[in-house]
Amino acid sequence: MRDSGKRANTTAHSPLTTDLLRRLAPRQVLTSLAERRNYRYDAIQFGETPLAVVLPESTADVVVAVKAARAAGVPIVGRGAASGLSGGAAPLRESLVISFTRMTGLRLDPVRREAHAQAGVVTLAVSDAARPHGLIYPPDPASFRTSTIGGNLAENAGGPMCFKYGVSGDYVKGLEVVDAHGEVHTLTRDAYDLAGLLIGSEGTLGLMTEAALRLLPPPRFTRTLMAHFPEVGACAEAVSQAIAAGAVPSKLEFMDRACTNAVEDYLVLGLPRGAEAVLLVDTDGDDLETVEEERALVEQACVAAGGTVRRAGTDAEAAALWQARRSVSPALGRIRPQRMNEDIAVPRSALPEVVREIRVLGDASPFPVVQFGHIGDGNLHPNILFDPRQDDAEAVHHLAHQIALVALRHGGVLSGEHGIGSMKRDFMTDALDPVTLDVLRDVKRTLDPADLLNPGKVLP
Amino acid sequence: MRDSGKRANTTAHSPLTTDLLRRLAPRQVLTSLAERRNYRYDAIQFGETPLAVVLPESTADVVVAVKAARAAGVPIVGRGAASGLSGGAAPLRESLVISFTRMTGLRLDPVRREAHAQAGVVTLAVSDAARPHGLIYPPDPASFRTSTIGGNLAENAGGPMCFKYGVSGDYVKGLEVVDAHGEVHTLTRDAYDLAGLLIGSEGTLGLMTEAALRLLPPPRFTRTLMAHFPEVGACAEAVSQAIAAGAVPSKLEFMDRACTNAVEDYLVLGLPRGAEAVLLVDTDGDDLETVEEERALVEQACVAAGGTVRRAGTDAEAAALWQARRSVSPALGRIRPQRMNEDIAVPRSALPEVVREIRVLGDASPFPVVQFGHIGDGNLHPNILFDPRQDDAEAVHHLAHQIALVALRHGGVLSGEHGIGSMKRDFMTDALDPVTLDVLRDVKRTLDPADLLNPGKVLP
Repeated sequence: MRDSGKRANTTAHSPLTTDLLRRLAPRQVLTSLAERRNYRYDAIQFGETPLAVVLPESTADVVVAVKAARAAGVPIVGRGAASGLSGGAAPLRESLVISFTRMTGLRLDPVRREAHAQAGVVTLAVSDAARPHGLIYPPDPASFRTSTIGGNLAENAGGPMCFKYGVSGDYVKGLEVVDAHGEVHTLTRDAYDLAGLLIGSEGTLGLMTEAALRLLPPPRFTRTLMAHFPEVGACAEAVSQAIAAGAVPSKLEFMDRACTNAVEDYLVLGLPRGAEAVLLVDTDGDDLETVEEERALVEQACVAAGGTVRRAGTDAEAAALWQARRSVSPALGRIRPQRMNEDIAVPRSALPEVVREIRVLGDASPFPVVQFGHIGDGNLHPNILFDPRQDDAEAVHHLAHQIALVALRHGGVLSGEHGIGSMKRDFMTDALDPVTLDVLRDVKRTLDPADLLNPGKVLP
Repeated sequence: MRDSGKRANTTAHSPLTTDLLRRLAPRQVLTSLAERRNYRYDAIQFGETPLAVVLPESTADVVVAVKAARAAGVPIVGRGAASGLSGGAAPLRESLVISFTRMTGLRLDPVRREAHAQAGVVTLAVSDAARPHGLIYPPDPASFRTSTIGGNLAENAGGPMCFKYGVSGDYVKGLEVVDAHGEVHTLTRDAYDLAGLLIGSEGTLGLMTEAALRLLPPPRFTRTLMAHFPEVGACAEAVSQAIAAGAVPSKLEFMDRACTNAVEDYLVLGLPRGAEAVLLVDTDGDDLETVEEERALVEQACVAAGGTVRRAGTDAEAAALWQARRSVSPALGRIRPQRMNEDIAVPRSALPEVVREIRVLGDASPFPVVQFGHIGDGNLHPNILFDPRQDDAEAVHHLAHQIALVALRHGGVLSGEHGIGSMKRDFMTDALDPVTLDVLRDVKRTLDPADLLNPGKVLP
């Protein structure tokens, strides 16, 4: 462990730690190795143990922390709940981690249909606070019970509802941002859309401290169905046909055979083990007839494509069907201790071929590879399962690269909703021209000249 | 006229013109003064006559033009149909104008629900091409019969459908851009969202040569109503109540008394001359019952607020009602030859007060001031009508500034859909902190180090 030599930090403070302790309350600065070690990872990747951790309670605290780190020349890594899946919050160098979990201020403005949320507000808390006013915050990343608004916006997180309702960034009306110099900016979505540039930039261009979020009235009715298919292409075909027929489902989730079996091994829900593809669909809206008509369109398309359909008759039955999808992550964790979770997004029409090509790559590799994702917008999560104590990290990375190339070859992109982080950083050279990468580097250098903000992320 | 001294250019070519004529076909380079003078204005502002005009037929031609202008140190102003309302396409210095009207390549991909449009494609042409495939391109700026996709994206144009369907930038899946160095970039909406930064940047950060646009199936049913109110606040109140009750109209347009009377003087449509506010509303969707229910919600809210409602019984009647709104621009042109057209967007809840405060400012000024706009999202167009041959430009600018300050004071922004251009550039210092403006200037400098791209726009 690289940390062993640095235990001295526990007692003998670094100049940065001394400075932080002088300017902030003791409860806001974590210095002991035991505490600091908890801040070196996100949900998928281990990084370097931070030099210090600050838990700001206000934007002013963030400014103090940024200025102190800047003065000490120490990199700064912002962190929400660390539920991210691309290594975005895992420090690559000895850094100051700014953990936003105590910045939980949340103010509702029902007349304007807005929530003003500090970075550390848990995603679900926004909808919980809005619901009494007849409003919700639609973005629903899988981790929404623990993830924070700041982390969601840093990665521009998606979720099953994305297909109909859009990703996190689509709900941002304004941002408060602390830049690399410790200056505070209040940004709207005007020309130039600096807020839009910050969203999804994974803390590499600035730290988002507060957001004004757009709220919507929730749909009055939801209907759920599950379908399974003897072949993956048939599933993708059914989705395309249903959408072409005019259905706009609110959720359209897919699990391949390996994924379905992993969940079934874990929970014994009665899922169809023999099916090559399982599809989970919600339709929603304020008019029950339309919602049921849309479900009927999906059902017809599934049957026409050779699928077998099961409708949820009650809310409880719908919840049971969705439990399968929500259990994918823990189910996979039982197969191998670690996974490389890709997040490609490809044109829907290319889905059958992409899924098949990735299946072939997986079968030819020594690793279990499972596929699931938001099939409605072509966002697939091929997961390579491995054991870091035994398996060759190089081989995992190579397979992940091959999978990324499949997506790019079919006109897709590297990340649908998880961000690039450190995991997919090196694949950016496949996705973008060198001249365009140079422009992105210029933008980074402009906003963060000393490369202090989450260095090593996004850009190769 | 500043041009008088430059007639020599007609015959004796500048080094830039000579270079362009050497590299491009003669039909692609306009050099005569008579031709060049047609490229110095947009729909609202006169600028400087350009040194030369290039009419590219491909991205390669754009690259040639940019490199030539760069070598000559001549500023570059991109131009679509010049129907913009903020001076975005009017050169402020002697420039090379690149007019995209011949880049009209348009390719449909109905399966992916995408249109690939070159910058010069007329907005309406996208929907016209998509409709046989059961798709439309929703953004509908008032000028959509003449405006181009490139111009729409440069200004991030809105339109009546915005409230329900979003602005132009929301439909962009990818962009092809020529940067200030003449390099070509293909951008998706990934981290960092450079495409998003370019959209709405008015040609100051790069030239958009092609866009991949998202298409949607059109709603099957539309219902229209007109309501008029004895008081402006009552109209705003009705809108707020209808939305709170669950209606999401596709269009929500407002005209004040002065505006209504200008249209009535022009066309004699039988509009209610005595009303302080006229509201035009469309509801749309695929389920007729829901569409009519939504219209009923709007109707109830209007009546409850003291309004008088008139439903359109047929499509022809609906078209007649909408003719009033579409005739605002020519109607105002008959009152005074020129107008300063603001584009503020304020929280809906602040609308009654904002409209009243602007009315008071208008009444106290020597100029006719009319108000209309997309009331659903609080986007108002207060117009100051004046005659540049008689009226004091300083006084017009001062009144425009006062109006902008009303919007900012009520938590609004300077531009809802027209862009900042040169007209509202100086008000940016009221809207943004100096440190934030500095960051925007840094971004501009990064992407356009020699300040060649549409200099003098957006940033004060």
